[in-house]
Amino acid sequence: MYAVIMAGGRGTRFWPRSREKKPKHLLDIISEKTIIQETIDRIKPLITPDNILVVTGKKHARALIKQLPEIPLNNIIIEPEGKNTAACIGLAALHIQKRIPDEIMVVLPSDHAIADEQEFSAVIGAAAKVAAREEGLVTIGIKPSSVQTGFGYIEQADSFRKIDGKEVFRVKSIREKPDFQQAQTYIQNGNFYWNSGMFIWKASTILKEISRWLPDLYAGLMKIDEALGSPDEALIVPRVYKKLKSISIDYGVMEKADNVFVLRGDFGWSDVGSWDALWEISVKDPKGNVLAGKGNVIFEDTEGSLVYSPQKLVALVGIKDLIIVETKDALLICKKGCSQNVKKVVDALEEKKLKKYL
Amino acid sequence: MYAVIMAGGRGTRFWPRSREKKPKHLLDIISEKTIIQETIDRIKPLITPDNILVVTGKKHARALIKQLPEIPLNNIIIEPEGKNTAACIGLAALHIQKRIPDEIMVVLPSDHAIADEQEFSAVIGAAAKVAAREEGLVTIGIKPSSVQTGFGYIEQADSFRKIDGKEVFRVKSIREKPDFQQAQTYIQNGNFYWNSGMFIWKASTILKEISRWLPDLYAGLMKIDEALGSPDEALIVPRVYKKLKSISIDYGVMEKADNVFVLRGDFGWSDVGSWDALWEISVKDPKGNVLAGKGNVIFEDTEGSLVYSPQKLVALVGIKDLIIVETKDALLICKKGCSQNVKKVVDALEEKKLKKYL
Repeated sequence: MYAVIMAGGRGTRFWPRSREKKPKHLLDIISEKTIIQETIDRIKPLITPDNILVVTGKKHARALIKQLPEIPLNNIIIEPEGKNTAACIGLAALHIQKRIPDEIMVVLPSDHAIADEQEFSAVIGAAAKVAAREEGLVTIGIKPSSVQTGFGYIEQADSFRKIDGKEVFRVKSIREKPDFQQAQTYIQNGNFYWNSGMFIWKASTILKEISRWLPDLYAGLMKIDEALGSPDEALIVPRVYKKLKSISIDYGVMEKADNVFVLRGDFGWSDVGSWDALWEISVKDPKGNVLAGKGNVIFEDTEGSLVYSPQKLVALVGIKDLIIVETKDALLICKKGCSQNVKKVVDALEEKKLKKYL
Repeated sequence: MYAVIMAGGRGTRFWPRSREKKPKHLLDIISEKTIIQETIDRIKPLITPDNILVVTGKKHARALIKQLPEIPLNNIIIEPEGKNTAACIGLAALHIQKRIPDEIMVVLPSDHAIADEQEFSAVIGAAAKVAAREEGLVTIGIKPSSVQTGFGYIEQADSFRKIDGKEVFRVKSIREKPDFQQAQTYIQNGNFYWNSGMFIWKASTILKEISRWLPDLYAGLMKIDEALGSPDEALIVPRVYKKLKSISIDYGVMEKADNVFVLRGDFGWSDVGSWDALWEISVKDPKGNVLAGKGNVIFEDTEGSLVYSPQKLVALVGIKDLIIVETKDALLICKKGCSQNVKKVVDALEEKKLKKYL
């Protein structure tokens, strides 16, 4: 079994900690390990480092290699440029096919958090069995705890069977990120899960599905497949990659495919998509305050807030529901519930050409 | 005419900018000049630096001397220890009496802000004439703009006369800091002013009043008077000063004296008693935000806030009514309206023995 860790994102919403040179998955936001180190450690009970591939961009490859000494250099796949998840997964599938044809691949985002690692292993293990036996596309659905417009949704159909005590459902539909009203109807309906972005399938199965639903992308992948390991690899792969369609695997394949399954991921999942999400999953004091990382904080009549300030003493007076993040050169103070708008700060920095803060 | 600038306070509520070693009056909080530099510059059109005395403590004398190169070293009066305003004013009066008996002295706090300096000069000038002619104690009252419990109050009696176009009133009573309800009745009454802590009188007059209402303190001052300029000055003054009663001039003298006058100070006065007060007197952008000092700030959906951050970029997202003060080693984030409680932070630091932040 192979794991493919997708480490292409930037994580703008974790500014000022995330920067162009240091995306979210390379930060120690959740624990003392970085998020990608957590991700690797989590899958290691199931898959040996020799079989873990990490797909990343040129910009962050060096920092990533430094953080992951256990992963063989051959397993770091560098995308010439970001082309969304369909191309990324296709590229990884080619590499796996070259090593062990028909091998199972577990596709994992690099930057999510999971509380119950044992349950995670159990669910992924069961999903791998389904993928092996059914030649199917297996997804992991998260039971929604709130109305969210930032995730895609998976609609379950009938129960298919149980494997290792985990119930497997056929999938009726995969939906793009909905608007708020749609999301509400999904939640009320009860048959909808959040799409965790984790997928389990055979490399051969997903390549077959890509050939069916994204034939142009597949043609490009075949050119790359030919070039891999050849003297012209460094020349041809970027040239072909540049022309690949930029499309997500959800939109390009999953929404159309028939043979899709879903297992429920009841393991305390979070995409840690924002500072708000980090507050949600963090251990809080009795007043709901979170001290993220080390630091000296004086909370005076303060509740529901998160502070990251490894260097400076921080004193909060009369504060409710704030996110405070201090780095060497920048300070973010954000109302809790507004941390999606941190992206707007990054946009403003770009507009003002304040590059050193990006 | 002499000026006496009282520079003994600490200004704890301006933490983290104010520190034990750097009290409020030595900070450039209101403009690019420090508050005491502003105070000196404001009185200079009336009184030459040779006639400006500054009373301060040992701890801050060096920094103060550095900031005030125009003031002769002889005019820096170092109190052996803080003994409240009656002793401080008495000590200054002795120095003035030694130079020019019966000279007028204008007593000014070192750490207040005044918007209209011309009007200030005009009022102080008129007050000095009253003090000279009437052998009286002349106060400056500020028309209250809100119910405040942090100030003493001056109750006016009948109009006495006009001098230089300024109306002079006799004072009916001087009141200590009231509770909220009392303060409300003062405001409703309409005859009450805030006590600005500025006083104008002859050195001889105030010494006479001290001898009448605080005879023990006066006796101590007489011992000091004898020692001043003698070989034993450095030995005797601290020994006597240590035993002086610690009492304010308001409580010790003004509340009891008969010959008290008040002129109205309509010159945009603020005691700049807290970060809130600084926001009040500062120039605001259309959304009520204040950038105190230089700095790079991105305001995203933010209003009514004050930011001091000379070094770091600060981004505010979804913020309302916050005070943010960043220094080299500490960061304060305080709800506007709560900045009186900054004192509690300093108390907490003292309790936790975090001396380096004090």
